[in-house]
Amino acid sequence: MGTARVVFDRWSDRYAQRMADVRSSAVRDLFAAATRPDMISFSGGMPEIRRVPIDSVISATTSALRDSGTEALQYGSSEGRPKIRQVVVDLMGEIGVRVKPDDLVITAGAQQALDLIAKIFLDPGDTIITEGPTYLGALQAFSAYQPNVVCIPMDAEGMRTDVLAAELKRLGPRGAKFIYTIPNFQNPAGVTLTPQRRRELLDLAREYDIPVIEDDPYGRLRFEGGHCLPLRALDDEVIYLGTFSKIFAPGLRLGWVIAPRPILAKFLLAKQAADLCGSAFAQTTAERYFADTRWRRVLQDLTRAYAERRDAMVEALSEHFPAEASWTVPEGGFFVWVQMPTFLDLKSILAEAVERGVTYVPGDAFYPDGRGRNCMRLGFCYAEPDAIREGIRRLAEVLEDRLILYRAFAAAGALPATDADERG
Amino acid sequence: MGTARVVFDRWSDRYAQRMADVRSSAVRDLFAAATRPDMISFSGGMPEIRRVPIDSVISATTSALRDSGTEALQYGSSEGRPKIRQVVVDLMGEIGVRVKPDDLVITAGAQQALDLIAKIFLDPGDTIITEGPTYLGALQAFSAYQPNVVCIPMDAEGMRTDVLAAELKRLGPRGAKFIYTIPNFQNPAGVTLTPQRRRELLDLAREYDIPVIEDDPYGRLRFEGGHCLPLRALDDEVIYLGTFSKIFAPGLRLGWVIAPRPILAKFLLAKQAADLCGSAFAQTTAERYFADTRWRRVLQDLTRAYAERRDAMVEALSEHFPAEASWTVPEGGFFVWVQMPTFLDLKSILAEAVERGVTYVPGDAFYPDGRGRNCMRLGFCYAEPDAIREGIRRLAEVLEDRLILYRAFAAAGALPATDADERG
Repeated sequence: MGTARVVFDRWSDRYAQRMADVRSSAVRDLFAAATRPDMISFSGGMPEIRRVPIDSVISATTSALRDSGTEALQYGSSEGRPKIRQVVVDLMGEIGVRVKPDDLVITAGAQQALDLIAKIFLDPGDTIITEGPTYLGALQAFSAYQPNVVCIPMDAEGMRTDVLAAELKRLGPRGAKFIYTIPNFQNPAGVTLTPQRRRELLDLAREYDIPVIEDDPYGRLRFEGGHCLPLRALDDEVIYLGTFSKIFAPGLRLGWVIAPRPILAKFLLAKQAADLCGSAFAQTTAERYFADTRWRRVLQDLTRAYAERRDAMVEALSEHFPAEASWTVPEGGFFVWVQMPTFLDLKSILAEAVERGVTYVPGDAFYPDGRGRNCMRLGFCYAEPDAIREGIRRLAEVLEDRLILYRAFAAAGALPATDADERG
Repeated sequence: MGTARVVFDRWSDRYAQRMADVRSSAVRDLFAAATRPDMISFSGGMPEIRRVPIDSVISATTSALRDSGTEALQYGSSEGRPKIRQVVVDLMGEIGVRVKPDDLVITAGAQQALDLIAKIFLDPGDTIITEGPTYLGALQAFSAYQPNVVCIPMDAEGMRTDVLAAELKRLGPRGAKFIYTIPNFQNPAGVTLTPQRRRELLDLAREYDIPVIEDDPYGRLRFEGGHCLPLRALDDEVIYLGTFSKIFAPGLRLGWVIAPRPILAKFLLAKQAADLCGSAFAQTTAERYFADTRWRRVLQDLTRAYAERRDAMVEALSEHFPAEASWTVPEGGFFVWVQMPTFLDLKSILAEAVERGVTYVPGDAFYPDGRGRNCMRLGFCYAEPDAIREGIRRLAEVLEDRLILYRAFAAAGALPATDADERG
């Protein structure tokens, strides 16, 4: 796209007001950077797709086309094919959530679910509650509907329910349209909501009568520790978003939303308006892929690979990163969250990191209001362990260069007054 | 979906205001009806997918996965893969539109383009101009953004530019956010905008400084008569929507939007928020399908089949339909538009038709305001010629039953005063 070269937009006064709030995406540029072969990318959230055996996919799509070709190539139902919805029912049953096919709709990845949930619930100025930091794609989807976003900080046990309680009290009953949470291996913070906090969050949501949206892309990518029951397993009214992107392949663009049926009916109307129906071609292929048990071994292999990469990253961070840095150690998923002194603006340092051949996402991408510039998200999902170690080494060098100034200030007792703990 | 059984929606006062305007879709129920084996369906707009050779698709997807499997299964760029955009560039060149890959974005069918165009342009209460009747999926997509829809009637030459001129004068410069038109074999009216009218429409749009959206799903399905240059060929600033659904397969959910680059940049932001990116899996398959020339023979064969069906329908209409009926004879596409005396409410008759084993779409689905109940859209795309003849015979019986009353009124000189010509 040559859009960077566009100087004049003669339609600039013609767009909808909502477009003023739609954030330019870091995601796209990150994907672009990740495709440079010399670059060590910690910026993307792309799964290690090379471990998915292509012959399994070819076999799935070939048999789907042979047996159900006419259906695979035709328009499908807006809620998704019965068979793929049954696959989701079975997957959910394995993690403690009992639903029927009619309790869910297949979406174009979980991103479409985020967009359409916001579309059906949000009027401009409505308040929503998210973790802070939170998934940048969610912020991007929500921002088009012009909400007021209240961010709840996290600690090692996930969203701080004491802060949530205070905010809900301030806002009053139904004072927010929904609470959005990523309970497992949160993106970007890497922390997991503990079972006790899950119950506290649900109790608060019930007390203040506010729907909860549980986004769970990484739940099955656990490296250690016990499985935590999803919020949806504890409360039937939770809206649950799932995706095939991390347990199969993002290229098919398949996800799902589980919701109470009246909400699902609204969701379906919004989905019809958005794309008529999902891809039957992708759905039939996924049905076949999951009809076999081989996907379980692939997922185990993937999870093991991610665990090794997490280990490589955490070890390298301990070895190379300056004493001023702290970071989370996720029990699963894709991301480590690094915090530096607030003095350091990691957005302004990114260009230098890219020059040295390593990328990350500055923390402010995960806040709606510019906070988080002293933080960064490091994705360990995509690079090999050796590359991860080298990337962390390069990044440490960049940080050390900047910290010289910081340390001089500190030695002179002249640190800025704002240098308080700002962990998201 | 058991949503029909839902009695109480405890979230009913929680939805966004826009949801009050989102129309319940006729489309979904129509798709459902079309899958009953005993039913002759004139209601859907589903292509005759059985004529697409499955082995071509298997071969395309297999070679795509073998050669580009990692890309096919991974997240892709939001604008779509360069190769599939080049396929679109070549397709557009063949119909007289010269564009570069960077002038377009791949979408999830043309429906996603309709949704996102509306999303970037429309504030609640904005005026838009469409043909009346118009595509119900467009009305559904637009309605979520709460516009005021002005419908311009058509005659045998397409949208009446004299009426358009009068409306634009009334609204003033930039008085509408856009003009939406389906110039070829319009859905549902079946008429084609003549070359002279195309120039008139563009002159008016320029005079009043209003963007034009050209939706062209059927342009390549012409049975007779000469090719009309697309509006986009006559004016660089026209926003053009295309789709692979009618020249390949809707099950892949692939379409495209061509627009001036500043608009495309906004569109891309909206698309990222909506689904991050399109399906690389579908895109790589389509790239391979169009790399071979076989698709041209398939499309010729399809177009011939549709032409035969159009003939069967038009002949059966002449043979069986009552004298009070009139209809359009499209030169291509999928649909015939039938007009009955305004006395007849074709929405109330539909249940009876379904009972006799034939479906259609009542005309009011194609208006934003309840007009069109004396009209119906008949799709000849999906049924075989013999079934079409039988279906029209059944439908004629239903109409004859109702016309007994009408004729009695007419004989008594007691027709309702509103029985004026209301052709859309």
